[in-house]
Amino acid sequence: MNVMIGYCPLIEKLEAHNEQNPVSMHVPGHKNGRLLSPPYSTYFEQVMQLDQTELKGLDDLHAPMGAILEAEHLAAEQYGCGRTFFLVGGSTLGNLTMILAFFERGDRVLVQRDVHHSVIHGLELAGVEAVFISPDYDKYSGLTIGVSKASVAYGFESYPDIQGVLLSSPSYYGNVGDLKGAIDEAKSHEAYVFVDEAHGAHLHIDAEFPISALAAGADAVVQSAHKTLPALTMGAFLHLRSTEHEARCRYWLHRLQTSSPSYPILASLDVARAFSASMCGKKIASQLDAFQKSVDEACPAARVKNDDPLKLILRAPAGWNGWEWEDRLNKEQIYVELSDRRHVLLVLPLESPDLWKHTILPVLTSLYEGEHMETTFDEMVFPPFPSVERYSFSKKLENQDVETVSVKNAEGRRIAEEIIPYPPGIPLWMEGEMIDQPRLQFLCNWLASGGRIQAASRIYEGRLLVRKEVGENE
Amino acid sequence: MNVMIGYCPLIEKLEAHNEQNPVSMHVPGHKNGRLLSPPYSTYFEQVMQLDQTELKGLDDLHAPMGAILEAEHLAAEQYGCGRTFFLVGGSTLGNLTMILAFFERGDRVLVQRDVHHSVIHGLELAGVEAVFISPDYDKYSGLTIGVSKASVAYGFESYPDIQGVLLSSPSYYGNVGDLKGAIDEAKSHEAYVFVDEAHGAHLHIDAEFPISALAAGADAVVQSAHKTLPALTMGAFLHLRSTEHEARCRYWLHRLQTSSPSYPILASLDVARAFSASMCGKKIASQLDAFQKSVDEACPAARVKNDDPLKLILRAPAGWNGWEWEDRLNKEQIYVELSDRRHVLLVLPLESPDLWKHTILPVLTSLYEGEHMETTFDEMVFPPFPSVERYSFSKKLENQDVETVSVKNAEGRRIAEEIIPYPPGIPLWMEGEMIDQPRLQFLCNWLASGGRIQAASRIYEGRLLVRKEVGENE
Repeated sequence: MNVMIGYCPLIEKLEAHNEQNPVSMHVPGHKNGRLLSPPYSTYFEQVMQLDQTELKGLDDLHAPMGAILEAEHLAAEQYGCGRTFFLVGGSTLGNLTMILAFFERGDRVLVQRDVHHSVIHGLELAGVEAVFISPDYDKYSGLTIGVSKASVAYGFESYPDIQGVLLSSPSYYGNVGDLKGAIDEAKSHEAYVFVDEAHGAHLHIDAEFPISALAAGADAVVQSAHKTLPALTMGAFLHLRSTEHEARCRYWLHRLQTSSPSYPILASLDVARAFSASMCGKKIASQLDAFQKSVDEACPAARVKNDDPLKLILRAPAGWNGWEWEDRLNKEQIYVELSDRRHVLLVLPLESPDLWKHTILPVLTSLYEGEHMETTFDEMVFPPFPSVERYSFSKKLENQDVETVSVKNAEGRRIAEEIIPYPPGIPLWMEGEMIDQPRLQFLCNWLASGGRIQAASRIYEGRLLVRKEVGENE
Repeated sequence: MNVMIGYCPLIEKLEAHNEQNPVSMHVPGHKNGRLLSPPYSTYFEQVMQLDQTELKGLDDLHAPMGAILEAEHLAAEQYGCGRTFFLVGGSTLGNLTMILAFFERGDRVLVQRDVHHSVIHGLELAGVEAVFISPDYDKYSGLTIGVSKASVAYGFESYPDIQGVLLSSPSYYGNVGDLKGAIDEAKSHEAYVFVDEAHGAHLHIDAEFPISALAAGADAVVQSAHKTLPALTMGAFLHLRSTEHEARCRYWLHRLQTSSPSYPILASLDVARAFSASMCGKKIASQLDAFQKSVDEACPAARVKNDDPLKLILRAPAGWNGWEWEDRLNKEQIYVELSDRRHVLLVLPLESPDLWKHTILPVLTSLYEGEHMETTFDEMVFPPFPSVERYSFSKKLENQDVETVSVKNAEGRRIAEEIIPYPPGIPLWMEGEMIDQPRLQFLCNWLASGGRIQAASRIYEGRLLVRKEVGENE
């Protein structure tokens, strides 16, 4: 595809260095790619030209004063904020940093329950007092649609000492709900608002995309540039509305981010930022929306509507679950982002559908032809979480007595490990929470259908780690 | 260079996926590199073929059961340990994980003082009680040469409740000292031994390299594969002698490492491991040693001897400091790893010098010709650290009153920020330590000569952040 993109200060500096035919007597050990040989060298030769270390003129991510700072400033200007940090450790790093930089142990924080586990881990490390609020659910699809203004209001009514609100938007499935309403409510109580916008680095490009978190008033936003923009995996942004907490963010980035950041990843962030700028004014959101409508025509009743036209949710036909439908698509060399009990999720390319619709529309049309689509559903795709729930991350539980139990005996016990269906990476229970039947059933169905779990290994033997009950015989 | 390397399970799986000409409807957003266009696409096109997500068959770094686990097992086999974790967050991530996995708050740990700041940050996060032991110094070069067996013994004599010993070897400059002696002493007290071996991923290849930490008996070792092997920057290994702490390491990796690890970096670890295996038996250490001796002939008195022949230390001639000499080499398109007051440090390529010596030997010969080499020195390259010193990371100092002072008024005050000359990334003082004249002078000289500092910004205005003295007027 030919997209002319503008000035990229970092990659230009790296190119200028290469043009001298430099002799590398420094790390990394591949020496501008020379040490590798065919067949595998072909994958790495070019990118290794960019894979430098902190030589003069190439700046330093941990103390940027040159090309990296300039690239970060261009990003801040484009996204509309006071300060942008380039990250090489993904939104995981961004979320940990954001939370540790803004909160102290014991602070009370309102947290959207269906956040990514990296947000939960940040809260854990920071030792805050969390109040979880449940997202709303679309009755038709069973998918979450963000936290409502009313839920945020109820949270503040119940806990007036809340200092910050942590939201996650868009959802993995591209739903945003009333983000502006939720943020406005939080700001009306003068709380900080943070948004894990891992799935939304593209939203600012076009006003017809759902509103971006910065535009909606958030104070700090984390984005995975690699998910929706053409950056290398692990490239992410941390945006701060003001520079007030810049030093605190630097403090945590210096601890949690590698002292040897990847120049290829940094350069790809520079390029991705310029790419996104070049897409402004191209009406990409309505083009993607038009594509989704053509899917409706070709495959009636297959699509599930959502807010972000970059995400396409398709229902598996009757008699298929989502994982089986994903396998069916794989046979046609179409690879999707994730599947659940009922759906497959596609992340569409951020470019004119004229360039790629031929790679999927005919296949989808053909696969859905003759299939019967169910229109009513009994059950949630993901089980509901309790509504307002306090959870203390500040009282560290030292060496709880634990034991494993079989899954069929787990109901009513208190979970002592993390269970994280992946994707989407949302913890099923908080540690110490009572194991309830709906979520236990969800877990069994998930595993039986081939869904994956992170963080728990004995689950594959049908066992869970739980707290020993007080008064049990040893 | 043509080096035949063996089986690489992960990169083969990625290749097999690509061979199907898959249509990417998943992250990352570049869609197998298609979204970028010239001129910058040329750097990324090939590596983006490997830049996939956790599709079926491509395994999952956080719960490896397939090709990633196989690649990790091949590495464990090669390095001679019970379990190897592939890391995409560098030795920084490895050090944080290793320390947090093995220690609890309040544990007493013996720590080599000249460790990388990521080790210090790990101790901080873990909340341990540290006892710092000073490394020994080579009187001639002023460079550190590891911690002696006697120093370790003295540490245990002073603090019999030590549970673990943290060493850093080789040093940035390639010195190892009596690593085996130090580890033997620690093991005789039944303590865990951990080594930040960031600069030593190549040592196992050839018995004529200095001894590797695993061979010397360490329980856990972190290596930056990217520094000396041909892996992409940020690729690292965490090796465990036994699987005893595997679950605890997984626990911390799940928190600190991105949930979207880079497949290019993982694949490059697989390839680097195979590359290092292919170098066994090629007598690379003695070839590098012979090259260093030819430097002695060509440039008498320029070289400083060290333990690792992969690292070449050259003295700047009389009238030049190391940074100026580095600039002089840059004019000849030779780029070194770092410079200090007196030296430049070169990381040589891990391949036969016949392939690359023509790129530097003639230039070095010519540059040193006619230059006068000093042979006596008054001062340390880096200032000495106090010998055995207790430091508590477990007593968190809440909101200390701080103020900035000019550098000339800083002596005798307690430092309240990190000052980290970079490279090599070793903190000059621990927070709260009294600012002494030798280190203050070192800092001024370092900055005046163009040396860089991470973590402190006001230093460039000639100011330091210190604790307010008790009893001062507000």
